[in-house]
Amino acid sequence: MGGESVKLLGFWASPFALRVKWALKLKGIEYEYVEEDLQNKSPLLLECNPVYKKIPVLVHGGKPLAESLVIIEYIDETWKQNPILPHDPHERATARFWANFADDKCVPAMQNAFSKQGEEKERAVKEARENLKTLESFLGEKSFFGGERIGFVDTAVGWLGLWARLTEEAAGVSILDAETMPLLNAWSQSFVEIPIIKESIPPWDKLLEHTKNFHKILTAGST
Amino acid sequence: MGGESVKLLGFWASPFALRVKWALKLKGIEYEYVEEDLQNKSPLLLECNPVYKKIPVLVHGGKPLAESLVIIEYIDETWKQNPILPHDPHERATARFWANFADDKCVPAMQNAFSKQGEEKERAVKEARENLKTLESFLGEKSFFGGERIGFVDTAVGWLGLWARLTEEAAGVSILDAETMPLLNAWSQSFVEIPIIKESIPPWDKLLEHTKNFHKILTAGST
Repeated sequence: MGGESVKLLGFWASPFALRVKWALKLKGIEYEYVEEDLQNKSPLLLECNPVYKKIPVLVHGGKPLAESLVIIEYIDETWKQNPILPHDPHERATARFWANFADDKCVPAMQNAFSKQGEEKERAVKEARENLKTLESFLGEKSFFGGERIGFVDTAVGWLGLWARLTEEAAGVSILDAETMPLLNAWSQSFVEIPIIKESIPPWDKLLEHTKNFHKILTAGST
Repeated sequence: MGGESVKLLGFWASPFALRVKWALKLKGIEYEYVEEDLQNKSPLLLECNPVYKKIPVLVHGGKPLAESLVIIEYIDETWKQNPILPHDPHERATARFWANFADDKCVPAMQNAFSKQGEEKERAVKEARENLKTLESFLGEKSFFGGERIGFVDTAVGWLGLWARLTEEAAGVSILDAETMPLLNAWSQSFVEIPIIKESIPPWDKLLEHTKNFHKILTAGST
């Protein structure tokens, strides 16, 4: 399997594509990266992910897979070196629970905190903070969500700190402040400094410019 | 591990608890079933699932786990007999993709088709039908989503046909008609006739009465 071609369809600023890049890096897998124009999606993307028509998509040996968490588990099961999920079934289940919690509870609230206005925005900021605080309860005093080393949840939510900083600068709201969430803050800062993680993160100025433009588009016309 | 106590906190009419019962049955696991009063949740449930405070919860050897799909994967990884997920990594990922699709796309639309009124209901019915048709595309001509035998997706979505019939009788809308979705219909009918599956399904009259009462409560006061 290791010899078959690996292709990742992504978008440079997408945290969901970034997760998959990190998983591939952690495994040391060589892959071809294909940048998608989300305003004009390629026939390959539409063919590989007809259900959601979204990136990221991994194509391995000609077989496509969509949905970032599903892709990361696939990567972990296909290439056994440097395991991402823990070995113990209960720990594996707990990691899946928290990665899903991040996607089901933190992501929508963070998206609304970024894009909404007025009362809706306030509610979303409150909800995002509460949910991130809940996520922090699973991290606790550990170095990483995975314990002493990076694991599934770290890979899944490693972009949190970046997204929070971008939201603060572009949308003017704080969702991950160091006073109320010191552990999650410290983790997010140390995570993105790990060389193998850092090297896949786009330059800050480019991310910020993109995020500010995106915020303008989303909020244009709203009061 | 097999010798440790297994407890399932559930609610008799919940399709999410039913999934887990099916997975335990398929594996031949003896377990203690604890019925929860959802209006007055037990201290054990609140302690075991502080994040969502929802059933189902599996407690194995004193360790709790929540979220039905996470629980089913845990059961499959803990007791190796009668595998629920396929062996091949790409097939495993594909099964996870479709079980998630059912929960993310079919369940909310079906819930809204059941509980909403007027235009919102119409939109939800249309969306539910479209998403179920998409789910049917993965089933195709296979006997089961898992191929020749029941697998992860069958266990996850096996209640679909029951729910659709209950919705039709209690809420007056058809979301899984035999003309437009003949394959999904045939599968859902044969699935619930499998003895090991059938024996966990509550009696139809009791389910229907509960569903009609629930529909009255949900729609009381709406126009």
